[in-house]
Amino acid sequence: MPREFSATRDDVDAIAAWTVIRAARELARRLGDALEPLALTPVEFGVLVQLAAGERLTQADLARAVGVRPQSMTTLVAGLGERGLLDRGDARGRGRRSRVTLTPEGRDLLSRAYPVVRASNAWFGDDAEHLTAILRPIVHDASEPADTVP
Amino acid sequence: MPREFSATRDDVDAIAAWTVIRAARELARRLGDALEPLALTPVEFGVLVQLAAGERLTQADLARAVGVRPQSMTTLVAGLGERGLLDRGDARGRGRRSRVTLTPEGRDLLSRAYPVVRASNAWFGDDAEHLTAILRPIVHDASEPADTVP
Repeated sequence: MPREFSATRDDVDAIAAWTVIRAARELARRLGDALEPLALTPVEFGVLVQLAAGERLTQADLARAVGVRPQSMTTLVAGLGERGLLDRGDARGRGRRSRVTLTPEGRDLLSRAYPVVRASNAWFGDDAEHLTAILRPIVHDASEPADTVP
Repeated sequence: MPREFSATRDDVDAIAAWTVIRAARELARRLGDALEPLALTPVEFGVLVQLAAGERLTQADLARAVGVRPQSMTTLVAGLGERGLLDRGDARGRGRRSRVTLTPEGRDLLSRAYPVVRASNAWFGDDAEHLTAILRPIVHDASEPADTVP
């Protein structure tokens, strides 16, 4: 590597992880626009859809699945709970360990949001399936519970 | 779409944009670990590498290229400027319109950070090139200046 380092736009694009990170910001912006009529942000959609796909998840499970910090998930879950979209369970006082479930209202809103979000696959033309196949191992590596956490 | 909506983990993964967003969070975490010895965050690396690839960018150009809000870029540029890694130019008082350039110190640090980050392509096996080809149109659609901005 020469001391006088330089880079082209192609060099920047060639860093796959950085391209994924930049694309994610644009995709979050576009999904935000698509979901605005339903008063959902992309990450709120993510919480609801992970709850529909999971069995009585804890806030810690949800944070891993959605990819946000546990503290952020506490705020997200509280906001969605106040809107009656999810139930934080009996053990509300126990915080992150309590089990969270979708309410009928949450499931109904999700049933309207899911097709809106699913339609975004058209942004990738014929490549949506290949794209998710490439990234799925990264996502599931992140969402597995760490062995060291009790 | 039935009223009693349900989703499987495969349904969640099948939403390409949401999978990109989740993967980006994990990749940012991993890149953060890789860059920690150089005291750079992934987005700070992004600012430096975009400056190496661009010609005297404004803060607004940089915000578009990196995919952060202009206000966030002001903070990022100030922090990197204080570390002597970039020069905010003569027109510091004019804020976002001033041209930003890499200093020799910034270029030197980038020359050490670039190979670290470039090595992350190994996380995608043989798919890194295909991945960037799929996402490049999304990234460059976002980074083009809007027609309506003077």
